[in-house]
Amino acid sequence: MAISTKPPSGMRDFLPADLARRNHVVGIVREIYERYGFVPLETPTVENVEILLGKYGEDEKLVYRILHRGEELQRVLRDPPAAGLDADALSDQALRYDLTVPLARVVAQYGELPKYFKRYQIQPVWRADRPGKGRFREFYQCDVDITGTESLIAEAEVCAAACDVLDRLGFTSYRLCVNHRKLLRGLIRAAGIDVALEGSALQAVDKLDKIGRDGVIAELVARGVVDVAADRLLTLLDRPSDETDAARLEVLARALVDDEGRAAIAQLGDLLRVLATTSAGRCARFTPALARGLGYYTGPIFEVQVDDLAGSIAGGGRYDELIGMFGKRKVPAVGMALGLERILLVMTERNMYPELTTGPELMLCWLDVELAQVLDVAKRLRSAGLRVEVFPEPAKLGKQMQYADAPGVKARWCGILGTDELDAGALTLKHLASGEQTRVALDAVLAHVRRPRD
Amino acid sequence: MAISTKPPSGMRDFLPADLARRNHVVGIVREIYERYGFVPLETPTVENVEILLGKYGEDEKLVYRILHRGEELQRVLRDPPAAGLDADALSDQALRYDLTVPLARVVAQYGELPKYFKRYQIQPVWRADRPGKGRFREFYQCDVDITGTESLIAEAEVCAAACDVLDRLGFTSYRLCVNHRKLLRGLIRAAGIDVALEGSALQAVDKLDKIGRDGVIAELVARGVVDVAADRLLTLLDRPSDETDAARLEVLARALVDDEGRAAIAQLGDLLRVLATTSAGRCARFTPALARGLGYYTGPIFEVQVDDLAGSIAGGGRYDELIGMFGKRKVPAVGMALGLERILLVMTERNMYPELTTGPELMLCWLDVELAQVLDVAKRLRSAGLRVEVFPEPAKLGKQMQYADAPGVKARWCGILGTDELDAGALTLKHLASGEQTRVALDAVLAHVRRPRD
Repeated sequence: MAISTKPPSGMRDFLPADLARRNHVVGIVREIYERYGFVPLETPTVENVEILLGKYGEDEKLVYRILHRGEELQRVLRDPPAAGLDADALSDQALRYDLTVPLARVVAQYGELPKYFKRYQIQPVWRADRPGKGRFREFYQCDVDITGTESLIAEAEVCAAACDVLDRLGFTSYRLCVNHRKLLRGLIRAAGIDVALEGSALQAVDKLDKIGRDGVIAELVARGVVDVAADRLLTLLDRPSDETDAARLEVLARALVDDEGRAAIAQLGDLLRVLATTSAGRCARFTPALARGLGYYTGPIFEVQVDDLAGSIAGGGRYDELIGMFGKRKVPAVGMALGLERILLVMTERNMYPELTTGPELMLCWLDVELAQVLDVAKRLRSAGLRVEVFPEPAKLGKQMQYADAPGVKARWCGILGTDELDAGALTLKHLASGEQTRVALDAVLAHVRRPRD
Repeated sequence: MAISTKPPSGMRDFLPADLARRNHVVGIVREIYERYGFVPLETPTVENVEILLGKYGEDEKLVYRILHRGEELQRVLRDPPAAGLDADALSDQALRYDLTVPLARVVAQYGELPKYFKRYQIQPVWRADRPGKGRFREFYQCDVDITGTESLIAEAEVCAAACDVLDRLGFTSYRLCVNHRKLLRGLIRAAGIDVALEGSALQAVDKLDKIGRDGVIAELVARGVVDVAADRLLTLLDRPSDETDAARLEVLARALVDDEGRAAIAQLGDLLRVLATTSAGRCARFTPALARGLGYYTGPIFEVQVDDLAGSIAGGGRYDELIGMFGKRKVPAVGMALGLERILLVMTERNMYPELTTGPELMLCWLDVELAQVLDVAKRLRSAGLRVEVFPEPAKLGKQMQYADAPGVKARWCGILGTDELDAGALTLKHLASGEQTRVALDAVLAHVRRPRD
């Protein structure tokens, strides 16, 4: 019986050429994040279920859970709980769903962390969502977060770091949409909507890009909002595109009926002013309709959008209550996650990668010499720092050089070792692209191969 | 109710100082592997269960399995199979158990890979083993494998690459134990043991280091081997320590009764000669009692051992039949896995790490200036390439500088920005270790901070 050798649905093997692109991007993310003073953190793939549940809302059905093993599984199957067998009875661990909840757990756990913990984390997460274009069940996130401070510097730094990364990757036109959860709540109140409907209303508002103003109003009404109030809310949120940020702040400030909303407006004004001097200045835009799905945000929220992709390539916000759910201390926090898969997707479509090499610099081809002599030459070249592959089997030179140039191998040079070269302590170097061929002393091979060429 | 914020049993959070050590080691592994012409591969965390099962023997009970979700789980709970509910009914996916079986799947799946696929892979694997010193349930392996050739160059290259890595990490005394699965089979036959008991006998032999000669004989007898035959086998395998490899090869060659065993002896002799010219030459040692647990090996096998650690820090061998189990083609292969956790453990105990820094190079401290001005200075320093953290809140300078020097932060410099510095386009730099303090123009900060110091 033949079994399928494909990876599981929605998951991917990354072959060397894929990894060259991924590592190019991740290397830049890491470099920029470190320049901002962020330090790395990694957490386990598996978390205890009680850490994950109650944080993500109805998406929790997408969590991958680990089945009990051995005696524990036997026991629960033999003697199921009164409520019957279900996922909770069969499992108490699950795969990481995002990088924010694990960070919150870590900050609650380790008292020795710095007061202002600036961490970056680049790891995969798992969601059993329906796979689609740029949407996978195992995918990487690149998060930066700052815990321990309510200062707007934290918001400004995570936004500026994300924009610096995008600039360095070659993105030129993107928008950093900025809003505030407490302003949204204030506008919901100002529109005359019951605050008990806030969470539900936000989920409808979140779809404005997809279903338009009339669609959102219909969905708000379906969720129990009176139609006049729904219309009033959309008039506040869906602003004319030529309105300046300052004008928007002023119009909405006048509409608000509570102090919390007014404080949010003031804070947004401060944030936009501070952002103006950073790398995020060029692209920041106050966007009152930005809602962000996740339940844990408490203050400013952000999202980075590009023109030809529905959805966002980065998003984040302030979540001052999440860490306190795990520990005794309340710890304020703000973060931004770059969606690596979507960034790679856009970069591929726009052809934004530099030339990236994967294969060896030199394929060592050999004829009429001993294996031990071949490996001795390889050892000397590698000690100098050269990336060398040794053709592994006796074969005609033509066949060896053809292999060196084959797709998926693509060595830049062949180094030919025969009895003449061995006697002379040299290699015959052949540049595969040009066909140029020269004999070079072993000691000089590195310099010859690395010499800049036209 | 307080919930535990510890990671799951046998799994770990890697804080920044841990990651500095791990990344130091992984960086060297990657560099050396690439120098040998290996290219990177990554496979999904989750594999279909049918790919994993039947490859690892009785250890398969240690596999972490993913519970079915949603409708699929409902269906199996509502209408269990005739054989009853068990792990196979509740799950058809599992976490990666090693990196060799996923490689075999990948080679069977992608026809476009080079004929001689030299890949390295550095990823975690999961085994629900009892946690202990240096033994975790989520741990990293660093594998190199060469598929597509039966040439001994492949064995020599994976051994040499592993030894080169260990040399570069600073290991000075380790042994590369070398043996051959078909020689073991020949010696089992020569000792008069039924070949049907081969697998079982190998598991007993594998424990020689732990339980000694008499212990292995007792275990062989318990597994059904006649005591004279068990004694004869141990006399062949457990060699005097002062015997040279050449003498061992000769003694065992004379004892063998079949051609397969003699061919294995000849191949081992060739391999040891070829290894002698490589980085593995100094440490290679023919070790007839080396058995290696995994079932899939078919030729030479290796293991790297260090003095003060039971078990090995690396191991591998030839497995010419595994890839054929997944595809139509038989593809020979050989590989070596470095055990990252054990290497880190030994390096920590022996204090083998260089000085590794994690924190920012400079903490920007500020007084009486605007947030926007602080961030503007930070932006200029970072554009030059400096790793800069901005103190996030208004505070007395002393408090800011104290924080910069706190454990877990440990900036090397403070850069003080007040109104004077702002007017002068400068920073007052304070070197935290020496207390030395100077005012430096913004453009010159990078050079001043990076200047080599005594």
